[in-house]
Amino acid sequence: MLGELVEELTRLPGIGRKTAQRLALHILKQSSEDTTRLTDAIRAVKERLGFCRQCGNLAEGELCEVCQDPKRDRTRVAAVEDIATLQAIERTGGYKGLYHVLAGALSPLDGRGPADIKAQELADRIKGSEIEEVIVATSPTIEGEATAIYLSRLLKPLGIRISRIALGVPVGMDLEYADEVTLLKSIDGRREIG
Amino acid sequence: MLGELVEELTRLPGIGRKTAQRLALHILKQSSEDTTRLTDAIRAVKERLGFCRQCGNLAEGELCEVCQDPKRDRTRVAAVEDIATLQAIERTGGYKGLYHVLAGALSPLDGRGPADIKAQELADRIKGSEIEEVIVATSPTIEGEATAIYLSRLLKPLGIRISRIALGVPVGMDLEYADEVTLLKSIDGRREIG
Repeated sequence: MLGELVEELTRLPGIGRKTAQRLALHILKQSSEDTTRLTDAIRAVKERLGFCRQCGNLAEGELCEVCQDPKRDRTRVAAVEDIATLQAIERTGGYKGLYHVLAGALSPLDGRGPADIKAQELADRIKGSEIEEVIVATSPTIEGEATAIYLSRLLKPLGIRISRIALGVPVGMDLEYADEVTLLKSIDGRREIG
Repeated sequence: MLGELVEELTRLPGIGRKTAQRLALHILKQSSEDTTRLTDAIRAVKERLGFCRQCGNLAEGELCEVCQDPKRDRTRVAAVEDIATLQAIERTGGYKGLYHVLAGALSPLDGRGPADIKAQELADRIKGSEIEEVIVATSPTIEGEATAIYLSRLLKPLGIRISRIALGVPVGMDLEYADEVTLLKSIDGRREIG
């Protein structure tokens, strides 16, 4: 019994065998009410939560909260790899545009090509819409950069502005400890001040 | 005897008591030749190494290797807080201009004002020189930003270009884990691609 729960828990991302065993023992010891709340919550998420028809964000209905919000700027769309990145940008509280969840990044090594991410869907969404700019907010990794280059080529014929988030030194970091590639990017990407 | 060496070693930055004791015991056990080489090296650094008259970098003579190098671009100067940052930028191998070591950053809380950093020296150095651009490469910390603002005001009347290194997401980082201020800076500082 407990072995099966451990087995199931181990299949979750980031949960190793030891953590799974600790979680399983905790569940075994907690009250039945706590357990019911946990299983209900799991079931509710599966039953009620889906994906936004427009941008791919989590949504309780057809459209997510961002897409439904009349205060958001509909001329700008940030293309992100996943919902976790969308949520990270939302937490900044400073971005007022919409999103497009690509649901992945190009990765030839893993056999993930253009058809495996929602790039064509983004192009289709732009056509005839109010969108004037796509901000490519994929990670500055090999996959994320490849995706940025692919998107810029795909979307260029649509006559919109395509921009890339700034690579550079993170706020608060002592330059002495910045890695070399980032330091160079931050010099290349310098902006006039004053 | 050993206690005194431990005491001296503890005064070095980043050396705690335990490390000092380990180092002291190592010195005690090593050969006399090794010890002589160590003390000679320490003495040589103190005797022969000084600071570049032009930029404040380490130098064996009047001018440092960077300032002496005819291949460096003399129209660009990166203003850095300390020699460690200068060395970090040199390690990137991608910057071809000169430097100016400010030897500190503004910090009103610590009572460090404009007169405590080599800012006026930079202004004096620019006048009548070939310098066309100062790249403010101070850390994106409160002190570094305050220094950047101060420098841009001080140098503006000289009619040169003043730029700031890019703040943004470090290369290789998964956006999901970027801190919020940096993420916002990376969206604000986005650049057109494609």
